Amino acid sequence: MRQTKFFLKTVKESPADETALNARLLIRAGYIDKLMAGAYSYLPLGLKVLEKIKNVVREEMNRIDAQEILMPALQPKSLWDETGRWEEMKDIMFQFKGRGGSDLGQGATHEEPIFDIMRRRLKSYKDLPVAVYQIQDKFRNEPRAKSGLLRGREFSMKDLYSFHATRDDMLAYYDRVKLSYLTIFERLGLNAIAVEASGGAFSEDYSHEFQVLTPNGEDIIFHCDCGWAQNKEIAKVKEGDKCPSCGAEKIRADKGVEVGNIFKLEQKYSAAMKLSVTDQNGKLTPVYMGCYGLGPSRLMGTLVEIHHDDSGIVWPDSVAPFKAHLLLLSQSTVTKEIADNAYAELQKSGVEVLYDDRPESPGAKLTEADLVGLPVRIIVSDKNNGLLEYKRRSSAEIKKIAIKDLVSEINKI
Amino acid sequence: MRQTKFFLKTVKESPADETALNARLLIRAGYIDKLMAGAYSYLPLGLKVLEKIKNVVREEMNRIDAQEILMPALQPKSLWDETGRWEEMKDIMFQFKGRGGSDLGQGATHEEPIFDIMRRRLKSYKDLPVAVYQIQDKFRNEPRAKSGLLRGREFSMKDLYSFHATRDDMLAYYDRVKLSYLTIFERLGLNAIAVEASGGAFSEDYSHEFQVLTPNGEDIIFHCDCGWAQNKEIAKVKEGDKCPSCGAEKIRADKGVEVGNIFKLEQKYSAAMKLSVTDQNGKLTPVYMGCYGLGPSRLMGTLVEIHHDDSGIVWPDSVAPFKAHLLLLSQSTVTKEIADNAYAELQKSGVEVLYDDRPESPGAKLTEADLVGLPVRIIVSDKNNGLLEYKRRSSAEIKKIAIKDLVSEINKI
Repeated sequence: MRQTKFFLKTVKESPADETALNARLLIRAGYIDKLMAGAYSYLPLGLKVLEKIKNVVREEMNRIDAQEILMPALQPKSLWDETGRWEEMKDIMFQFKGRGGSDLGQGATHEEPIFDIMRRRLKSYKDLPVAVYQIQDKFRNEPRAKSGLLRGREFSMKDLYSFHATRDDMLAYYDRVKLSYLTIFERLGLNAIAVEASGGAFSEDYSHEFQVLTPNGEDIIFHCDCGWAQNKEIAKVKEGDKCPSCGAEKIRADKGVEVGNIFKLEQKYSAAMKLSVTDQNGKLTPVYMGCYGLGPSRLMGTLVEIHHDDSGIVWPDSVAPFKAHLLLLSQSTVTKEIADNAYAELQKSGVEVLYDDRPESPGAKLTEADLVGLPVRIIVSDKNNGLLEYKRRSSAEIKKIAIKDLVSEINKI
Repeated sequence: MRQTKFFLKTVKESPADETALNARLLIRAGYIDKLMAGAYSYLPLGLKVLEKIKNVVREEMNRIDAQEILMPALQPKSLWDETGRWEEMKDIMFQFKGRGGSDLGQGATHEEPIFDIMRRRLKSYKDLPVAVYQIQDKFRNEPRAKSGLLRGREFSMKDLYSFHATRDDMLAYYDRVKLSYLTIFERLGLNAIAVEASGGAFSEDYSHEFQVLTPNGEDIIFHCDCGWAQNKEIAKVKEGDKCPSCGAEKIRADKGVEVGNIFKLEQKYSAAMKLSVTDQNGKLTPVYMGCYGLGPSRLMGTLVEIHHDDSGIVWPDSVAPFKAHLLLLSQSTVTKEIADNAYAELQKSGVEVLYDDRPESPGAKLTEADLVGLPVRIIVSDKNNGLLEYKRRSSAEIKKIAIKDLVSEINKI
């Protein structure tokens, strides 16, 4: 993509009311725009990142036999009254009147509508197991939408729901999802840990949160090198205590960003919403259920919190909007031809490349490239006798290489 | 995809309050579920169709140099007060209070937020032209949400906005979008006509609606075989009059479904929202703008209105969720092996195939296959000496063919 044809405008200053590091960097680098607290627009560069994250999630969901669906954000009160959550969630759910005085809300989560779909379709244990997910924008009337993409009033969420004939089957699928989540975070370039948390009103078992440790997190996590981790609400330890699991290492306390959570809902909602199937003896039994959340937009914010330096963002390869940033630092005909050739070579080989062919100063281009943070920077200038300057965003090392070696150098990673 | 692993449940009856043909068929065939009037869930089969429509739209938008972005649905009143539309649209826009009493709304369209993004980024005529689009769910407090996917309270919309330094450039791009829309409808298997309509408060020129003629449409369209077409609101003719364009043919009146519209916004919003750029002489000038809408979910409903028969849906190839439906009508080991081989062959060749390997009766499978409406039906039964029964959904002709000829037969189309 030629930058002269691409809508990418970096901005000098992020809005005065924007205090979150992730949003400040993403706004300045031209990825997102702030409409108001907790509501952001994704500009072309930002949408590419968000879509890459969603596609990694989608691939891993499909791998655990989950099928994609899409439910409305708009919700009728009647359905949420069945579980008592219309009243329970009224502080966090946007609720309002439609035509004729009907009570409507914006989905902050989707257990009720997925139950409504399933109870009209699942009849027998033979219809189970079923796992469906959606990647959909949720709305929450947040009291503290001050953390950029980490806490939105409108945000992207992947919510997965699974339905099972037996508790054992539910537990086995829960474990599959747990592993799937860890794979997703690893593919995205995030080191997330599975943290035990309360099962809430649903289960006596623990639920699990997935936490990325960072100074800007909102949660406090107690954890140990042996793998044991619990959130503050349930942990009966303090920093420096011996780990209750391995008995050897000392407990550490860190702040974390919760990037996912998984719950065993057992039979609680099935009973409330009358979702039963006949078992092998023809007897009606409420189905067992699990629900599993993960936030693509929150992941995008978390990635920036973790992967940046003083000059800007440092995207992991898996989610970078382009793999390489090709900078033409001269307007001489000969040098321009070299850059055009390098661009053609990269495109031919299927390397996603952003080609800065604008008539801006070399200094401005270099500063902006660091801010935007693509994994590979390639400079074409008058100085290098036809060679290219090749540099990884995450390293200080600069190599001079010929165009013919460019693609193999990029594919080394 | 094996149907034993796929979440597809046809239902005997659509909900009693569902009167629209498109929704009735889509619900019965397992594509969508009705949550309430004007709000539908897309089940795995339905989401595949919706995504195929969106991807055709996306490809054609990218071809006219438009770049994809994504804006929030949630909107602050302050922005909409700048154009006076907070008050003007209060009947159709869901408006409610957030924390601390702030006034929020759900975007029914997105001119105001895109202006807000652009006025902070466009400085000079050199930054123009720019065209950006989003494919995003819109919300409208509809008084008559009774037409299934044709008129949703929540619905998918592609909205494109273009910005230009001169009126001529705006007009040229408007014509490009018009051609692009006609290409999209043709690719989707819809015969849409461009109909002149009022330019509204924006322009003395006509705007254009794209209408698909069908008995269930909500609009009345006067048109002529020569290509002339106007909507009832502006037309000064009646049925049977001589065409004012060619002067020869007689005018016909038909009902139509509006599947897209394009507007010249001229400089109206730019002036109201202070979006000006410096021209070549350094003088500030409000930018010229066009906006262009198209509804993927409404297109899905329209496709069903047009492409169905008494037995069910008849999808055009371009949007069918799978190309072929392979039906195994026996549980004998030999026949099952033939079906498995045919399935493997199709998958190897990249043909999207749904394999009905369930232990249901032949009659049930055949009826359901017609209802679901995939373009090609392939039957494997005990009767055909190892051959397959091949039939297009849109034709009565049945061919007996060998597995080795299956892929070439499918690719003939």
